[in-house]
Amino acid sequence: MRIGLGQFDAVVGDLEGNAKRMREIYRQAREQGVEILLFPELAVCGYPPEDLLLKRHFLEESRETVEKLAADCPDLTIVVGFADYYQGDTYNCAAVLKNGGVAEVYRKSLLPNEGVFDEKRYFEQGNKPLIITSGGLRLALTVCMDIWDTDWLGRFFKNAGKIDMVLNISASPFHLGKIETRKSIISQCAAQFKCPACYCNLVGGQDELIFDGRSMFADASGDIIAMAKAFEDDLLIADITKKDDVVQVGPQQRELPVELDLLDEAYQALVLGTRDYIRKNGFKKAIVGLSGGIDSAVTASIAVAAIGAENVIGITMPSKFNSPDTVGDAELCAKNLGIQFMTIPIGQILEQFNTSLTDAPDWDTKGIAYENLQARIRGTILMSLSNQWEAIVLTTGNKSETAVGYATLYGDTAGGFAVIKDVFKTTVYKLAAYINKINNREIIPLSVINRIPTAELRPNQKDTDSLPDYDLLDKILAGYVEEDKSAQQLIDEGLPAEVVGRVIRMVDRNEYKRRQSPPGVKITPKAFGKDRRLPITNRYKDGGLI
Amino acid sequence: MRIGLGQFDAVVGDLEGNAKRMREIYRQAREQGVEILLFPELAVCGYPPEDLLLKRHFLEESRETVEKLAADCPDLTIVVGFADYYQGDTYNCAAVLKNGGVAEVYRKSLLPNEGVFDEKRYFEQGNKPLIITSGGLRLALTVCMDIWDTDWLGRFFKNAGKIDMVLNISASPFHLGKIETRKSIISQCAAQFKCPACYCNLVGGQDELIFDGRSMFADASGDIIAMAKAFEDDLLIADITKKDDVVQVGPQQRELPVELDLLDEAYQALVLGTRDYIRKNGFKKAIVGLSGGIDSAVTASIAVAAIGAENVIGITMPSKFNSPDTVGDAELCAKNLGIQFMTIPIGQILEQFNTSLTDAPDWDTKGIAYENLQARIRGTILMSLSNQWEAIVLTTGNKSETAVGYATLYGDTAGGFAVIKDVFKTTVYKLAAYINKINNREIIPLSVINRIPTAELRPNQKDTDSLPDYDLLDKILAGYVEEDKSAQQLIDEGLPAEVVGRVIRMVDRNEYKRRQSPPGVKITPKAFGKDRRLPITNRYKDGGLI
Repeated sequence: MRIGLGQFDAVVGDLEGNAKRMREIYRQAREQGVEILLFPELAVCGYPPEDLLLKRHFLEESRETVEKLAADCPDLTIVVGFADYYQGDTYNCAAVLKNGGVAEVYRKSLLPNEGVFDEKRYFEQGNKPLIITSGGLRLALTVCMDIWDTDWLGRFFKNAGKIDMVLNISASPFHLGKIETRKSIISQCAAQFKCPACYCNLVGGQDELIFDGRSMFADASGDIIAMAKAFEDDLLIADITKKDDVVQVGPQQRELPVELDLLDEAYQALVLGTRDYIRKNGFKKAIVGLSGGIDSAVTASIAVAAIGAENVIGITMPSKFNSPDTVGDAELCAKNLGIQFMTIPIGQILEQFNTSLTDAPDWDTKGIAYENLQARIRGTILMSLSNQWEAIVLTTGNKSETAVGYATLYGDTAGGFAVIKDVFKTTVYKLAAYINKINNREIIPLSVINRIPTAELRPNQKDTDSLPDYDLLDKILAGYVEEDKSAQQLIDEGLPAEVVGRVIRMVDRNEYKRRQSPPGVKITPKAFGKDRRLPITNRYKDGGLI
Repeated sequence: MRIGLGQFDAVVGDLEGNAKRMREIYRQAREQGVEILLFPELAVCGYPPEDLLLKRHFLEESRETVEKLAADCPDLTIVVGFADYYQGDTYNCAAVLKNGGVAEVYRKSLLPNEGVFDEKRYFEQGNKPLIITSGGLRLALTVCMDIWDTDWLGRFFKNAGKIDMVLNISASPFHLGKIETRKSIISQCAAQFKCPACYCNLVGGQDELIFDGRSMFADASGDIIAMAKAFEDDLLIADITKKDDVVQVGPQQRELPVELDLLDEAYQALVLGTRDYIRKNGFKKAIVGLSGGIDSAVTASIAVAAIGAENVIGITMPSKFNSPDTVGDAELCAKNLGIQFMTIPIGQILEQFNTSLTDAPDWDTKGIAYENLQARIRGTILMSLSNQWEAIVLTTGNKSETAVGYATLYGDTAGGFAVIKDVFKTTVYKLAAYINKINNREIIPLSVINRIPTAELRPNQKDTDSLPDYDLLDKILAGYVEEDKSAQQLIDEGLPAEVVGRVIRMVDRNEYKRRQSPPGVKITPKAFGKDRRLPITNRYKDGGLI
């Protein structure tokens, strides 16, 4: 029996568009002799549909879409994820489509509700295993998290009889290195039931989340023997045969794809996330404020990879605090990328604001207000061009800055999508080198990579005037933000107490800025956004230390 | 036996501060002969603590705080809410403090996970009822939602023996009119067990949420016979006596408080929410951009009620599109409120931006970009003053505008707190009249109330150029946003199809603006924010209608 895993980029809410894409894959699979075709979890409505699931009419249309898909695709058995309203409750389901109709429905049993997940907000738990029979094989249906608790899974299928293969449809959000965990989960699942397992994962960017595909087949010993493409649509096919009670997997694709290292993963995730956010939200063009610094250079490079150089516009907005070097680097970077480039100096606007504000009590040109004003003038220019050109502004703040609030609200945080908001500064450097490497030339000028980081909002400013060195900062942030460690734990690990205290205080105090910042691609185990939900009003002081 | 319900304004994360406040209430209660003193749900850490609950050290300190509170308050029995890490899981608990120690712990069983609630993200369900004995009475402990499902509650206490009284500690977020639902829940609970019930609710504003207090006693027949103050700290006391197997409640306070109508509630909630956000986030002063329109006038009035006229600064920022009438009204309103007032014209800044942008391809002064630019200049001025003065900017957008995106991102949406973001425009008018009424004079000039709504961003602009009449708009929004009705349902109710389609499209398309807007006070059953979680990237088109 031939199984196909049809991983594709489903768009949230686009019932009709997703069904259309599945019909295309169906035709392709049929031509290749596939008998059972799997689509990802909630492929009909995209993942996560969030509060669309509270609309009864959305669930009705979702059901109708599945029925129509079944009618349109009568020649194969299809397993497809959809949300179903059933006897007064909503379930995360796998429908089995056969002979033009919905033959069976399995309801997901284990509902993730941590991190970026909110499934218990919407779904009731299913509690009945479903085994379908096809080509003489008994296939156990599961949805995503169902296979992540192997003890539970064993109990769940205890009385279900012999299982020849486990099918899993998933929408498993990406983070760096997560593929290894997934491989071991699928491997364990196969080993536990001593039968092959397959896993069909979603593709695409949805607001903060990336789904990276890489659907898989594991054989009965638990070895991963076939894997679909990363970060793009694919149809992965294998023949399942049973001989002397042993079920074997013969993948069409004889070799596993080259493994991606963490930088490959980060880059591809950022490109896909940026492309999908721009495309799915109806934009064609993007604007990036190019400062001559490394963050905006990397952001622009990713934008070019995502939507093409012809659709990216770089704007540099120098003031008297910008050195000729940085202004030159901004232009050089734009030239290297082959994008349109414009210079709009902010000096006179700044002066006019200053004149208009001069009567305001205590107004001065020395403090943080004056620095922020420059950033806000730039934000306003970019947003004006965005409105005029119907182009999205991509912001350039990295995770280190975002964490400690080293950014101006409505200034450099102004824009529709924050490409590198989940990329630590130390990783931004690695990405810059990586971008030059894969392009076989200096896209990002070495002078940009080697410059001491500066916001250039006052004379001779350096990031280290306000922040610790990025190596140290990123270590503290990884522990505090991503692992919820206490100040004491970080100090016990050898990090300097004073700096730890200062950084934690900055992170906590700047929640309000993050709350008003645009979404961006999650690539770490814990990103700012849905993943980390801290109150703004929050007087907790970690151990009284800070 | 004398019971006290100690409702108070707990600050999220402020373990020490909350404990200090509880010790004060303890002393006050002891002086008044109270024997059992109740504090609200999660009173130790405030509600909702969100992802603070994922920090193990936070839970440890929380436990230590409870133990110290017990040691500090040995003379009464205290029931207090706290989050407890127990055998590998976290629970939402009621601790019973007695003789200087933690005598018992009840773990909340029903965990709300809809609307603004995320309790299943953090807590495991408890499953054991707890009855404590005091003064010869058997008292059943419950936490918040436990009493909202009466059938379940009956089963839960089925084998628990005779119950003389039900105690409930809550953190029940406010919305208009919710008190009636709460009264009937407590009433039902008392009637079900044929015994008195009491309910101790939290007070205070926490980011988007307001807790309105109004703790209660119900007698055995289910009548609400005592109620604490609304929107402020209070200690409500009653004597519980048992005679011939009948348990009676004798409240100290012999009369029920005057019932609030919906406008009283809205006003008091907005004032408390604004005051608490400002105060708890360490601000003293607030800035409001006064346009001469009704939204900013109402916002400024609420700010004055919240933090005092001496702490509110009104700024008007006229352009050539502002009529002398509106500029005059802004000043008059400031004068009526007794607040500081400043005029900063934006004409020259606008002109300078225009000059600097004139070389940008397609730049013009006719379209939306030029209108938004004016709003962003104003936002930038307010934020500059905010930075210089360390004063929070209060934004003035109402729910109708917020819903349809009739606002400029980083322009009029720029600020720390959005006072009336959950108040429909039609209610803003009622609030304006209400404010004048309770002040016994014209705070908000009648000319402001009677003016045809306009953003004044181009000559002769009126809101109705872009939007339907607010009466109609608010009807559509109430159905679509608050009740998740479909376009078809709204049309079937008699609303005009074309307008319904247009409004729904605007609401859906502007999710990205709301996501970057500041938090504000929730007063309706469904507010924008945690309450309504729609994806930004969303191609769902309601019934293909729009």
